[in-house]
Amino acid sequence: MGTPPSSGHFADGLAAAVERAGSPVCVGLDPVYEKLPGELRCGTPDGTGAVGAIARFCEGVIEAVSGTVPAIKLQSACFERYGGPGVELLRALVGRVRERGMVAVLDAKRGDIGISAEHYAAAAFGADPSRGADAVTLSGYMGADTIEPFMTDPARGVFVLVRTSNPGSDRIQSQRLADGRTVAELMADEVAKLGAAGGRRGGCGLSSVGAVVGATKPEDGPRLRARMPDQVFLVPGYGAQGGTAADIRGMVRAVAQRGATQGERAARAGVLVTASRSIIYPGEGAGDWRGAVGAAAKRLAKEIGEIVG
Amino acid sequence: MGTPPSSGHFADGLAAAVERAGSPVCVGLDPVYEKLPGELRCGTPDGTGAVGAIARFCEGVIEAVSGTVPAIKLQSACFERYGGPGVELLRALVGRVRERGMVAVLDAKRGDIGISAEHYAAAAFGADPSRGADAVTLSGYMGADTIEPFMTDPARGVFVLVRTSNPGSDRIQSQRLADGRTVAELMADEVAKLGAAGGRRGGCGLSSVGAVVGATKPEDGPRLRARMPDQVFLVPGYGAQGGTAADIRGMVRAVAQRGATQGERAARAGVLVTASRSIIYPGEGAGDWRGAVGAAAKRLAKEIGEIVG
Repeated sequence: MGTPPSSGHFADGLAAAVERAGSPVCVGLDPVYEKLPGELRCGTPDGTGAVGAIARFCEGVIEAVSGTVPAIKLQSACFERYGGPGVELLRALVGRVRERGMVAVLDAKRGDIGISAEHYAAAAFGADPSRGADAVTLSGYMGADTIEPFMTDPARGVFVLVRTSNPGSDRIQSQRLADGRTVAELMADEVAKLGAAGGRRGGCGLSSVGAVVGATKPEDGPRLRARMPDQVFLVPGYGAQGGTAADIRGMVRAVAQRGATQGERAARAGVLVTASRSIIYPGEGAGDWRGAVGAAAKRLAKEIGEIVG
Repeated sequence: MGTPPSSGHFADGLAAAVERAGSPVCVGLDPVYEKLPGELRCGTPDGTGAVGAIARFCEGVIEAVSGTVPAIKLQSACFERYGGPGVELLRALVGRVRERGMVAVLDAKRGDIGISAEHYAAAAFGADPSRGADAVTLSGYMGADTIEPFMTDPARGVFVLVRTSNPGSDRIQSQRLADGRTVAELMADEVAKLGAAGGRRGGCGLSSVGAVVGATKPEDGPRLRARMPDQVFLVPGYGAQGGTAADIRGMVRAVAQRGATQGERAARAGVLVTASRSIIYPGEGAGDWRGAVGAAAKRLAKEIGEIVG
């Protein structure tokens, strides 16, 4: 059992967790009932049977990767699907991740303003400092008003959607502005500005305001790093979607190296490479799915550790 | 008791509900415990006491405006704040709104892809056609991939964030592209294209894919209507934020008139003007808060009814 990471500054807690694990990887916990190991599937997919199966699966994954990875990203949609019981399970699993000394990132992609944003922040982080997620993913289309209500406590971090890994994102995020920037670069500049404000940079030099930058857009990574020198890049899509492995490795190396200008600890925490399906459904013998998940996490941690050096 | 609106096509159901009510207004149900009438506040704000009080408040508002307004928009954040019990209450209230013959819009501003988007759609709409919201608000920053999973059933609608009413939105949505469009206009074109695809226009000419266009940006309304002739405009911010009343009335009139080219029924359903605080906290004697809510809804319905003609 480790110390819950979110005491102090979010980026420092993350950097320490990455240091302990030795590799900046994050397991994406996006449980889908139909994909669970056969031994767990029982009851009906829409009832408590599914929630119970998902609970046992997620607990197994958390145990299996504990000690190997510094962070787990929990996909809110997969739990909200099951209403109140799903949401309660999500809260409990966030606590379990933190009890194990890992950073809990809630992938909720919320984006609202005023009291709605405040309520979303309370839902994600909780009123009690010992509870709730360490960080949450957010959408910035409505502007800084959507981000600021999540930034009242430097122990909690945010990751703002800048350049996402899905094919359809190009039609919005790759559009060129009159001033030469893309829409993604516009968003990157807003994120960098928000993240540079007082108290939002930790002792490691990185900010509690991070960015989501997909692995499938390797050409954009270094350009976005130049605009966001102090941001932790949460990098989904590693190993799952298009782009050649060499391209993606180059992108991860480039964005991590830029982080290295902030010091060695920051070098490792400047990216957080996320993989989901390739880890949690490793496709090996159902008889020892926990062992297969743990082995897949170890392989990814080793691979990413070698890339970032 | 009316028929649940979401049998058939979403836009036709909405147009029929607007026709019955006689005015295209929507009450925003964003309950905040601290603002509830004193007689309802009991127990602790974070416990079941708060959820119980919010339940009684929301049920009272739904009853009070039933028969006056065609639609209610429920703010998901205000319920998620209370975890599983809050989410279960939200589901129950969505059902209550529909039982009363009103259109239930879930204001969730979700935006994700793949199985996450599918799970969010299942959470919003439910597997059972007789349950779940009629429509949900979405963010399109990640592209069409985030919208399409919500569009498998024409009886369900979506409202995509195009131009929001908050001050901070200008720094993203008002940015000018190299091709002369603003970012909001880029989003509008994407929405119009998605909404024009097969089966997404109802018999009234309006699409099941609508747009959020804030009342506080009156100069943008007519320009966006020109780009989105078939979209229902969900217009928040009426009566609550900046801009002169005359400006806002002009904008509402302009966007509703454009909808009129689709026929008389569409004229009234081409906008859905949303007001929250001015209706649900009318600031009158706590002794009869239900009566005050009902009276405020009637005043707004009359005012908007006169504007759209």
